Amino acid sequence: MYVVLKESSTCEEILALKEFIHNSGHGALEILDGSVKKIGIMGKNGNLSKEMLKEFSIVKEIIKIGKPFKFVSREFKKEDTIIEIKGRKIGATDLVLMAGPCSIENRDMIMEIAKVVKENGGEYLRGGAFKPRTSPYDFQGLGEEGLKFMREACDTYDLLMVTEVMDTRDIELIGKYTDIFQVGARNMQNFSLLKELGKTNKPVLLKRGLSATIREFLMAAEYIVAFGNQQIILCERGIRTFEIATRNTVDINAIALLKEKSHLPIIIDASHGTGKKSLVEPVTLGCILAGADGAMVEIHENPSCALSDGEQSLNFAEFEILCKKLKKTLEFKEIIRCL
Amino acid sequence: MYVVLKESSTCEEILALKEFIHNSGHGALEILDGSVKKIGIMGKNGNLSKEMLKEFSIVKEIIKIGKPFKFVSREFKKEDTIIEIKGRKIGATDLVLMAGPCSIENRDMIMEIAKVVKENGGEYLRGGAFKPRTSPYDFQGLGEEGLKFMREACDTYDLLMVTEVMDTRDIELIGKYTDIFQVGARNMQNFSLLKELGKTNKPVLLKRGLSATIREFLMAAEYIVAFGNQQIILCERGIRTFEIATRNTVDINAIALLKEKSHLPIIIDASHGTGKKSLVEPVTLGCILAGADGAMVEIHENPSCALSDGEQSLNFAEFEILCKKLKKTLEFKEIIRCL
Amino acid sequence: MYVVLKESSTCEEILALKEFIHNSGHGALEILDGSVKKIGIMGKNGNLSKEMLKEFSIVKEIIKIGKPFKFVSREFKKEDTIIEIKGRKIGATDLVLMAGPCSIENRDMIMEIAKVVKENGGEYLRGGAFKPRTSPYDFQGLGEEGLKFMREACDTYDLLMVTEVMDTRDIELIGKYTDIFQVGARNMQNFSLLKELGKTNKPVLLKRGLSATIREFLMAAEYIVAFGNQQIILCERGIRTFEIATRNTVDINAIALLKEKSHLPIIIDASHGTGKKSLVEPVTLGCILAGADGAMVEIHENPSCALSDGEQSLNFAEFEILCKKLKKTLEFKEIIRCL
Amino acid sequence: MYVVLKESSTCEEILALKEFIHNSGHGALEILDGSVKKIGIMGKNGNLSKEMLKEFSIVKEIIKIGKPFKFVSREFKKEDTIIEIKGRKIGATDLVLMAGPCSIENRDMIMEIAKVVKENGGEYLRGGAFKPRTSPYDFQGLGEEGLKFMREACDTYDLLMVTEVMDTRDIELIGKYTDIFQVGARNMQNFSLLKELGKTNKPVLLKRGLSATIREFLMAAEYIVAFGNQQIILCERGIRTFEIATRNTVDINAIALLKEKSHLPIIIDASHGTGKKSLVEPVTLGCILAGADGAMVEIHENPSCALSDGEQSLNFAEFEILCKKLKKTLEFKEIIRCL
Repeated sequence: MYVVLKESSTCEEILALKEFIHNSGHGALEILDGSVKKIGIMGKNGNLSKEMLKEFSIVKEIIKIGKPFKFVSREFKKEDTIIEIKGRKIGATDLVLMAGPCSIENRDMIMEIAKVVKENGGEYLRGGAFKPRTSPYDFQGLGEEGLKFMREACDTYDLLMVTEVMDTRDIELIGKYTDIFQVGARNMQNFSLLKELGKTNKPVLLKRGLSATIREFLMAAEYIVAFGNQQIILCERGIRTFEIATRNTVDINAIALLKEKSHLPIIIDASHGTGKKSLVEPVTLGCILAGADGAMVEIHENPSCALSDGEQSLNFAEFEILCKKLKKTLEFKEIIRCL
Repeated sequence: MYVVLKESSTCEEILALKEFIHNSGHGALEILDGSVKKIGIMGKNGNLSKEMLKEFSIVKEIIKIGKPFKFVSREFKKEDTIIEIKGRKIGATDLVLMAGPCSIENRDMIMEIAKVVKENGGEYLRGGAFKPRTSPYDFQGLGEEGLKFMREACDTYDLLMVTEVMDTRDIELIGKYTDIFQVGARNMQNFSLLKELGKTNKPVLLKRGLSATIREFLMAAEYIVAFGNQQIILCERGIRTFEIATRNTVDINAIALLKEKSHLPIIIDASHGTGKKSLVEPVTLGCILAGADGAMVEIHENPSCALSDGEQSLNFAEFEILCKKLKKTLEFKEIIRCL
Repeated sequence: MYVVLKESSTCEEILALKEFIHNSGHGALEILDGSVKKIGIMGKNGNLSKEMLKEFSIVKEIIKIGKPFKFVSREFKKEDTIIEIKGRKIGATDLVLMAGPCSIENRDMIMEIAKVVKENGGEYLRGGAFKPRTSPYDFQGLGEEGLKFMREACDTYDLLMVTEVMDTRDIELIGKYTDIFQVGARNMQNFSLLKELGKTNKPVLLKRGLSATIREFLMAAEYIVAFGNQQIILCERGIRTFEIATRNTVDINAIALLKEKSHLPIIIDASHGTGKKSLVEPVTLGCILAGADGAMVEIHENPSCALSDGEQSLNFAEFEILCKKLKKTLEFKEIIRCL
Repeated sequence: MYVVLKESSTCEEILALKEFIHNSGHGALEILDGSVKKIGIMGKNGNLSKEMLKEFSIVKEIIKIGKPFKFVSREFKKEDTIIEIKGRKIGATDLVLMAGPCSIENRDMIMEIAKVVKENGGEYLRGGAFKPRTSPYDFQGLGEEGLKFMREACDTYDLLMVTEVMDTRDIELIGKYTDIFQVGARNMQNFSLLKELGKTNKPVLLKRGLSATIREFLMAAEYIVAFGNQQIILCERGIRTFEIATRNTVDINAIALLKEKSHLPIIIDASHGTGKKSLVEPVTLGCILAGADGAMVEIHENPSCALSDGEQSLNFAEFEILCKKLKKTLEFKEIIRCL
């Protein structure tokens, strides 16, 4: 349920309404949808009736949301959400390209990659310091040391940092370094983690689970919103199907449908989505044209030597070409939108 | 296994070699790969040794194919296959847009649609006269009457006709009317049907099975080649996954991978692939950019009244917009290819 | 829709009612459900109203069927269907074990296997003469010669013959030899084939498609009924999932659910369902206890030399043990049913 | 890699060897496999050579494990692992039936259910105090209060307590109350959680992820072992497939295969596996016969009023029948094992 406010509402009036909502045991989520002010009412609406809300003169309309995912839906907010971080925008027409290695292997490596990312117009550096690995005997990441290297690289080249958090206990530590928290596919329904990230004030990049339906994906995002954080970037990274020729199956339908159902930005990770470097470029470009607001890719100076995910990482030359084509595709997308 | 022929080979020499191969109990598939002449040797190579083939002076090289799908693979033929029908080309840069209703409902309807297809630059009319329906109690198609209506519509508007064949016994009848045989997803591994279509001389549009791997898809195409027909158009139409928000999951990875593994052209059917009319445009365009050579879409004057598949059919206004965007996307694809 | 007849109905009265139904353009499916006589009315019920049927004095009740699959459902017929062939019953408490090789390789082989099947209490010999093979270059079966060998083996050892039909054109030929037609998983939605088999008078063993839902499976069975043949044996043989450690995933839920939703007998093929000989026994026994009425298994004198499916075939010693355990399990199932 | 020790090895000698292994930076996992003593060497074996180990006179043999999951595999330990908790055994022939509500709703409810469980021969009470819910707006469980109620119920009726842990931060708290930690399907690859549970000394019931392969399932168990805890109970609870008639698809193949590949006990949760109360009994019994060592079921006094999962919960009368049949099935399984 949400209320649409009259244009004339003053700050004091809005504050009073929000306080009333809070006192009734609900959350109050204030947003600006285009030029329309709305307040979402979060939680079960047992003791808060339409009648009570109508008493407030600034309330223009009260609307029920017919979806299980509520505040991430277009029903609640028609306008695209744009996430702004240190001057860059995600969900607008800016180039959003998050690139970097699967795992941070050492300081030199991440500095070198950061340089390459910047030179090609990327504004985001991705990389894993805490790694979710299927085997306990595989390289588990450099931990805090990796975070430091990455922060240094980002500061040196003026990039935004994106790194994964896997444990509620690490949020504080990682939060000291990163600009964007990444939630991996295996943790998409780690509800404890989602709740805690909902309490932070940094954007969260939420990867779709390997077998998560679109509905479950949006419900996971809803958790973060419900606990207070509206800065969510969805990430399609391929789902698990019967097909074995590719690591996962990129769900291009989901990208188009998520843009329709939700106001949140979405990016495509074709590295994990395909698992094959030769497919990263065509699939990334295709998904951008189908609606994705940006891309994430794994790159490595020498993919065949990578400690993890070498098969799906682009080398620097391939990355350069992808960047060029991605920029052109974003321009073309704007042209076609207006046809 | 295939042999590469010397440039100097004469027709007589090639004929002699092919006869020799035939007499050894194998098929001989002659192709021109760019400017290189090759002969594929089909069947189990038991009694035909490399040594025997080397005796022929026109044989430059003998190469084993390391894939289970052989003559549809890039290993055999590096150059893209272009299928030419009455002056139109599939697999080149021509606009390939096959549009029409799910089922032909009556003469007027198909005439009207054909007109719309032509006006928007389409060159192919698709439509079902024999329909594979999940329920025996649903409309099963008009049968031969439908074929006649469709042929008339194609002749009137100078379009190519594409229609489904489901039974070996119907090949002859349908072949009298259609320009392209369509094999539906449910029949992708109807090997009897594939074999018989391999003996015809008309192009076959082969739809991927609902749960067919990419390897199985190419093996099905291989059946048609093995029985003599090289004119195959692959069609990605979505696979069956756990996702229920869309009818199927369009496998954009498969499109990119098929272009890499095979020389055959591939088109995207986003109507069946998504099952939702609002997703048809973004997914079609995305898949074109990822490598598809053309598209198939369901259209209907009044989708909500369609006897079948109304939910996924575009109306004429939506179709017009798609056509415009598709043309632009094809142009853009050529630009980006050269970057 | 179906009508329940009064107990007192005479043959003449029933005949008159059926004629009336036929004349209205519908099929009339007469069954005995326990001691209750019913007539199913097949086809779209446009011009046949409840009122018209009520005019017949033998009509006790008229009931709508709320499922898309109608005459295979428990809504239509509460009592289990028992299929009787030459004195053996499928769907009752008899041991139903269909065993044999994937492909018939030669006469001696099938004679030897038939002997083993009989000695262990099996009453059905399965084997492929026409084989659906993924590759056109693989062994395609012996064809009619294989049918002859199999018939001879069945006659010699008093077994019932089960063999696959893949093409409408082969029904007549195969029908001359076999006792049961098998429809393979890849042809479960080959509607032309289903229709033609509906016109025969031999039982049809219908395998579930690799990605067929339970609803689609029952709809496929409904096709056969709708065209006149009620003798259908369902066969669960594993579905395609993401799991790669086994060839398919046996859907034990489906077995239990099919027994609930449909009156048709169902058997389990754990050879294809698992793809691993060591799993055939536990999975077969488990599925029997969960509701399956019988089992199908692949056996071979020397599985490692089989021309196809060697990995999943039991040798004769393993088959003997399975037979013993299967008999015990059937007895136990009866005991537990009465608890 | 593991070493097989000579029978004559003394405690001092074993201790010395373990110390040596530890000092080389590896874990040393001592087990008794039947009557054979073995020490598993955990971690990457870089600087610990076979030669160095052979220096120890008690070392009889050194064996490489050819699987990515090592210490949970049959290659390492041939004998079934039996987990003993307060006198009850899991993995032996004891009846293992874990029953209870999805969520603990209040004290009376859990006391009542505990009584019913005990009366029917169950020894384990399951129930959720911290609930993983898809929606942030759904009932999230009673938290610690629920744990207290459950502990009281278990103490009153001498039952073992099984409850879910979702967050590393809750392990200590939950550990004060429960006898067995449950890891839910959504957390199967929550590696932080697995590691921390590996450091506890209580048994862990590990549920298979919705789209986890058998290999990934065993790798998740391996995490727990690698961090020190060998007491793991696997739980098959259905996987996600295209089928929508049931909530999940119980993978009976996986049960049979896991018994073959691993020495760990496995139980079947057919409540979640089917999502339909009518299927719980046949599927549970079938899976027991296929190899499962026990079962988990949801029960509720009045399923239609349950706060969650009512559709799949048995009422008390249904539970009573299941218990009787389960006991008979376990006896029958022993009989058949000896055939």
